[in-house]
Amino acid sequence: MLDALSLEYRPEIEHLPQALPSVPRMSLQNDTISLPVLNQSAGDGFVERLGSIFENAPWVAGRAASQRPFATVADLFRALREAIERASEEEILALLRGHPELAFSGTMTRDSVGEQHAAGLDRLSATQRETFDRLNKAYREKFGFPFILCVRRHGRDSILREFERRLNLTADQERETALTEVLRIGALRLDQRISGPDRLSVTGRLSTHVLDTTEGRPAAGIEIELFELASDGPHLLARANTNADGRTDRPLIGDRPVPIAHYELRFHVRAYFRGKGHRLADPAFLDLVPIRFGVAEPEAHYHVPLLVTPWSYSTYRGS
Amino acid sequence: MLDALSLEYRPEIEHLPQALPSVPRMSLQNDTISLPVLNQSAGDGFVERLGSIFENAPWVAGRAASQRPFATVADLFRALREAIERASEEEILALLRGHPELAFSGTMTRDSVGEQHAAGLDRLSATQRETFDRLNKAYREKFGFPFILCVRRHGRDSILREFERRLNLTADQERETALTEVLRIGALRLDQRISGPDRLSVTGRLSTHVLDTTEGRPAAGIEIELFELASDGPHLLARANTNADGRTDRPLIGDRPVPIAHYELRFHVRAYFRGKGHRLADPAFLDLVPIRFGVAEPEAHYHVPLLVTPWSYSTYRGS
Amino acid sequence: MLDALSLEYRPEIEHLPQALPSVPRMSLQNDTISLPVLNQSAGDGFVERLGSIFENAPWVAGRAASQRPFATVADLFRALREAIERASEEEILALLRGHPELAFSGTMTRDSVGEQHAAGLDRLSATQRETFDRLNKAYREKFGFPFILCVRRHGRDSILREFERRLNLTADQERETALTEVLRIGALRLDQRISGPDRLSVTGRLSTHVLDTTEGRPAAGIEIELFELASDGPHLLARANTNADGRTDRPLIGDRPVPIAHYELRFHVRAYFRGKGHRLADPAFLDLVPIRFGVAEPEAHYHVPLLVTPWSYSTYRGS
Amino acid sequence: MLDALSLEYRPEIEHLPQALPSVPRMSLQNDTISLPVLNQSAGDGFVERLGSIFENAPWVAGRAASQRPFATVADLFRALREAIERASEEEILALLRGHPELAFSGTMTRDSVGEQHAAGLDRLSATQRETFDRLNKAYREKFGFPFILCVRRHGRDSILREFERRLNLTADQERETALTEVLRIGALRLDQRISGPDRLSVTGRLSTHVLDTTEGRPAAGIEIELFELASDGPHLLARANTNADGRTDRPLIGDRPVPIAHYELRFHVRAYFRGKGHRLADPAFLDLVPIRFGVAEPEAHYHVPLLVTPWSYSTYRGS
Repeated sequence: MLDALSLEYRPEIEHLPQALPSVPRMSLQNDTISLPVLNQSAGDGFVERLGSIFENAPWVAGRAASQRPFATVADLFRALREAIERASEEEILALLRGHPELAFSGTMTRDSVGEQHAAGLDRLSATQRETFDRLNKAYREKFGFPFILCVRRHGRDSILREFERRLNLTADQERETALTEVLRIGALRLDQRISGPDRLSVTGRLSTHVLDTTEGRPAAGIEIELFELASDGPHLLARANTNADGRTDRPLIGDRPVPIAHYELRFHVRAYFRGKGHRLADPAFLDLVPIRFGVAEPEAHYHVPLLVTPWSYSTYRGS
Repeated sequence: MLDALSLEYRPEIEHLPQALPSVPRMSLQNDTISLPVLNQSAGDGFVERLGSIFENAPWVAGRAASQRPFATVADLFRALREAIERASEEEILALLRGHPELAFSGTMTRDSVGEQHAAGLDRLSATQRETFDRLNKAYREKFGFPFILCVRRHGRDSILREFERRLNLTADQERETALTEVLRIGALRLDQRISGPDRLSVTGRLSTHVLDTTEGRPAAGIEIELFELASDGPHLLARANTNADGRTDRPLIGDRPVPIAHYELRFHVRAYFRGKGHRLADPAFLDLVPIRFGVAEPEAHYHVPLLVTPWSYSTYRGS
Repeated sequence: MLDALSLEYRPEIEHLPQALPSVPRMSLQNDTISLPVLNQSAGDGFVERLGSIFENAPWVAGRAASQRPFATVADLFRALREAIERASEEEILALLRGHPELAFSGTMTRDSVGEQHAAGLDRLSATQRETFDRLNKAYREKFGFPFILCVRRHGRDSILREFERRLNLTADQERETALTEVLRIGALRLDQRISGPDRLSVTGRLSTHVLDTTEGRPAAGIEIELFELASDGPHLLARANTNADGRTDRPLIGDRPVPIAHYELRFHVRAYFRGKGHRLADPAFLDLVPIRFGVAEPEAHYHVPLLVTPWSYSTYRGS
Repeated sequence: MLDALSLEYRPEIEHLPQALPSVPRMSLQNDTISLPVLNQSAGDGFVERLGSIFENAPWVAGRAASQRPFATVADLFRALREAIERASEEEILALLRGHPELAFSGTMTRDSVGEQHAAGLDRLSATQRETFDRLNKAYREKFGFPFILCVRRHGRDSILREFERRLNLTADQERETALTEVLRIGALRLDQRISGPDRLSVTGRLSTHVLDTTEGRPAAGIEIELFELASDGPHLLARANTNADGRTDRPLIGDRPVPIAHYELRFHVRAYFRGKGHRLADPAFLDLVPIRFGVAEPEAHYHVPLLVTPWSYSTYRGS
């Protein structure tokens, strides 16, 4: 079934000539607020500014308001989380039910519209829509609330895989899982909206580095492409050239979770070595070097370097 | 059946569970002959047995016959080559004209039928046929004889690339090139048909070796696939599992020229490491490791090993 | 002859339990000055503070004083350099003659005492002293001024090698070379004494990084030793343990030029892997991993990482 | 104590200009015998030829004689071993007592003289002799027979380490251990003296291979030295140059057990790369590449290759 699906994933990225897959902070909202300003907001202002962090649940911010001022964003998030943890069973259920289904076509909060759009969930094919409709229905029937997933932590195949996996959980397990996702969504929104002295550990990074070991130097000017390898084929996520230090100016994925997925980096090394004056056979032994790897921890740093000569290369998970 | 033939290189190989891409010696003919037996053949027998080495030109063998006995296959080939080198201009032209065009659909020698079939030249699409017709016509008009190529030295894309490259040569250059190809075809046929104390240096080899550097041991039981990467997509050439020494029982390509082409080896390392008890993330950092490389010297040995842990790998052209 | 010598090199470093071979800024003098303060010094104060940058030549600072204020340390150095470049032939000769000989035992400036002490030149054996006396005499006879060398850029063997090399230069070549060394000495003193918005490019760095590729993680807690390999044997320069990121808290050599020399890094990997629960043979395949390398550019960054399993390792000049 | 010892180890090897550390088969005796000849020997001849396999215990061969003919050397060895296993307690004790002490200066069998000479046990310093005398005495007092060790399986430090380790065993454990050593000595002697269709698995191998990954080719003409790293310093065991295939013509250690020890291979790569036209700094980044490794299984194959550029290298235990 997965084969039939082709989520139009993060298309806004692919249109960029030098795609930067990092989702810039505040990309969904222009209203970045500094923590001191937030601390000084009157009660209503505080809730107004933070009310959308948890979907259709301004009461969460309301209950945390009394703990102002917050020294760090982490403190603020902790207060919000505790408000949820202390809520009644009815409030929790209402919170869960306040989320839209995935691929929902009706009215949603501004945040959810943005997140579902970035995940391509508003551009499904007929077959895909059918799959989501079927899963959404089965899920709601079993658990009594919509399937909630922090979609920014998942690649194309991973969203559906999670959907099917969680359909098999018990009610208790799934209630726990759904709340975790609610908190993940909230933490990411908070991280993007509030600038303070700290950042929440909710983003990861994918970076690379190319060393030309015939010269003992960084390889500058190597063209690199990053693909997500989904069941419906490879999807270009980013294209970059190495700078004088053999790195890309920005991380290939940064300032956001690295979606759980299979990836392929492609390094165009033949053009580089030819430009350096190496005499290469035709075809060259190495031309395009592909490195495939999987990401399982969206909040981690994946450093995937390449040490290369015209006749050899190494790669590893670095740091 | 495959074992009994055959240059049926590629498509039918893919159907085999453990494909063996090496073309067995003597695959075209059952009449393998040992050099001593050949040496003792009466004049007619000698020509009869060797007449097909050079396409429609039994006179080549006829002129070499007087030099019997030959101590080595190399000596025999040298005598055949000298017969061609000493031939008159008319004879050379007749020799060249005695070859069929590529993708020719008419009557050909048994050898040519086999060679063109193995290269897929008897199963072209309409578009491909048009291209060949156009090129064949242009070539014959320019040079006065058909385009001759030792197709077993070339991959899918390389045949047409050579065709177009050679169309731009001068008449003198191309006559030289065509004769070289005639000799290459003859040498390969000779190498397959005559068993002597030596082999002509007309075959190459592609091999691999996998080392598990977490254990300092050969990695046994790793599934490997070899693909030719052609402009129309990847084509599976061979599938093998590493043995206790981390090698494949037979070379991935052996006992034949390694076709000029781009290749991809795929090593299924996740299954291996999981089987060894490593706890891997889901998805694993490394799952299928692809190594792409180009072959430019069909008669060379390409050794492409993999040194691998669940988090790193190296490859290089070895020896 | 070199074999007979054993310069007691940088002993202040070796006495530290966790040696930090970086010479801390301002280590020789306590009077660090910020550029703005220097800019506001009255003429006499300016010369007083900078007079010792060039050995016994306060006139250099005096001539640059009128160009105050300096926006950067680089601007200040440029003005000092130009004062020298515009000086008369007699002044240049006096500047060169104002330097002490290497291994001089008489009265020297405070800076020279410190620099020669750090290079061990005040603790020579009788044989070494004889060599220096002989070379100093031959040099002064040939060129008419003492041998000047920025000793902090050189290892034990390199000082004498330079001495002998330069004895063979022509008078013109050597005058040029000596002035370059005067400027190098001055630039290093300036870099240590003036804090401004910039640093002069007069220091280098030696760093390392250890990755455990069985885990795809930095290897923490690996004991590392750095030796200088001189003709009289190895000399321990630094000892450190890798931190959680697989690096040393400070560069192995930093904030100073990396002396031109041969080095050996020793990584104690057996203890690390045993601590990680790997079952190792006795003796282990890898125990102490030595990496030898040479440094030829004192102002460059030498990054020498180790990727290691219990059965394999790689190293390279990184960046 | 070990630090005080310097066993003059295998000197016959070090005197060779191109040392070949393999002990050639039959080096200790000229009387190689083929298995068929041995099978046909009359009873007395059989015992005469094999009597010295087990020290001063011709009865072992005598009891195996009736099982002639032997199809393989392994069959022959099995028969000899079973004769020992079935011997009475008194015979076993007599067998053990029939061995000379290590570093014994009195009359020994021709085999023991050769083996102890090769291990340097006949050229001890006064201090070493004292140590051996003390240990021999303690051992004999505790166990009632001399310390028996197959010295060809051990390096300089390993002999004494084993001696001290075994002094701490119980009488039962040590009797077992001593018999194992008796069998190891016998198997090695048999392997050298009898040529049959098979070899006993009593020898190991140390080999190397150098690949120049700037060229994708074997590195030919690299000078290699092999040292044993003992507590009293490094001892040169072999020196060789790589051939056209990047290997040494013979294994660095072969046709004998690889002694349990620490080793260092030194590859002179600067001279090689300079000869290839690489412009190297002075000092070069890489000059002499040392690889240290330990051997714990004397009968195994240790393959220690080097993949190298002027700026990087890798090594691993290969196969």
